[in-house]
Amino acid sequence: MKRSEYESAKQRTEEMFAKAGIVLTAEEADKIEVAGFGLNDLERQGLELITYVNSSRYCAKELVLFPRQSCPEHLHPPVGDDPGKTETFRCRAGKVFLYVNGRSTDGIQAVVPAGSEAYYTVNHEIVLEPGQQYTIEPGTLHWFQAGDEGAIVSEFSSTSRDEYDIFTDPRIERMPVIEEE
Amino acid sequence: MKRSEYESAKQRTEEMFAKAGIVLTAEEADKIEVAGFGLNDLERQGLELITYVNSSRYCAKELVLFPRQSCPEHLHPPVGDDPGKTETFRCRAGKVFLYVNGRSTDGIQAVVPAGSEAYYTVNHEIVLEPGQQYTIEPGTLHWFQAGDEGAIVSEFSSTSRDEYDIFTDPRIERMPVIEEE
Ligand SMILES: [Zn+2]
Ligand SMILES: [Zn+2]
Repeated sequence: MKRSEYESAKQRTEEMFAKAGIVLTAEEADKIEVAGFGLNDLERQGLELITYVNSSRYCAKELVLFPRQSCPEHLHPPVGDDPGKTETFRCRAGKVFLYVNGRSTDGIQAVVPAGSEAYYTVNHEIVLEPGQQYTIEPGTLHWFQAGDEGAIVSEFSSTSRDEYDIFTDPRIERMPVIEEE
Repeated sequence: MKRSEYESAKQRTEEMFAKAGIVLTAEEADKIEVAGFGLNDLERQGLELITYVNSSRYCAKELVLFPRQSCPEHLHPPVGDDPGKTETFRCRAGKVFLYVNGRSTDGIQAVVPAGSEAYYTVNHEIVLEPGQQYTIEPGTLHWFQAGDEGAIVSEFSSTSRDEYDIFTDPRIERMPVIEEE
């Protein structure tokens, strides 16, 4: 991701937090993560986030999705003694369409990113509006997309080890670098 | 605590959440906990909260303090294999004065509840404004008070086992019942 693309997504994220009444310190705002997953398709496939705390015991993040932006399908595998990350998504603003392993939902409400259909394989739909939440157990494939207004999601979880996440799309790099211009 | 006192505190809590843009489902609102700690002094010593998730891996709650209300001094001891609860307090709205073990702060900003001075023994002060947070390690004595506008605090933590909390004030019961009138 180019520096200019990062800065623009960061600013948009800050605006969405401000609109929702979620306050970050200046130091936190400077650490907003813009995850493009190496796909060069941020508007459709990406995630913006701030990690409040990530210790050996628990983790809390605030996630932002732009309108119709999707976090690509992945799962959290066991790592050493850890059975894998368990995560609770709580919708704070906007609407989220979440998909997990399970019985297929007919006519899902998300729009699968064209050209990436092969990498969005689970379609049991859970809709989260503000105040609603859902817990994803380790090893469960999942992906999620915001509705037309975008979304803000609080993530409460066990320890995050993002570098071990397994994405369905083999083109994905979870930890790409920003290219200076 | 009498049912009418509970209902009034619950409504006030819901209003503070609404003002801060924090949405609860109707089912959650019905489970708002009003902790008076058996002290019959809710305006000065008490805590209102909703638990979003509390599993064997992690816990997340939203805490409300009315203006100048204090959560009494306590610590989280080891329980079985658990070294004790670690908790991260993140101020979302208002202002919080937090006190922990450590070097005394001269002229603290909180007002210790009159008559309970003996049970507020630590006075190393940390001030939290919206976006600021602090992590309390197991076994650390702590208490906290809202400023004049009240406060909302997100608590991210390891598993909560509130019934094991050790309060400095021996009169405290953590799990009192609501008396029907
Ligand atoms: Zn995940
Ligand atoms: Zn505590």
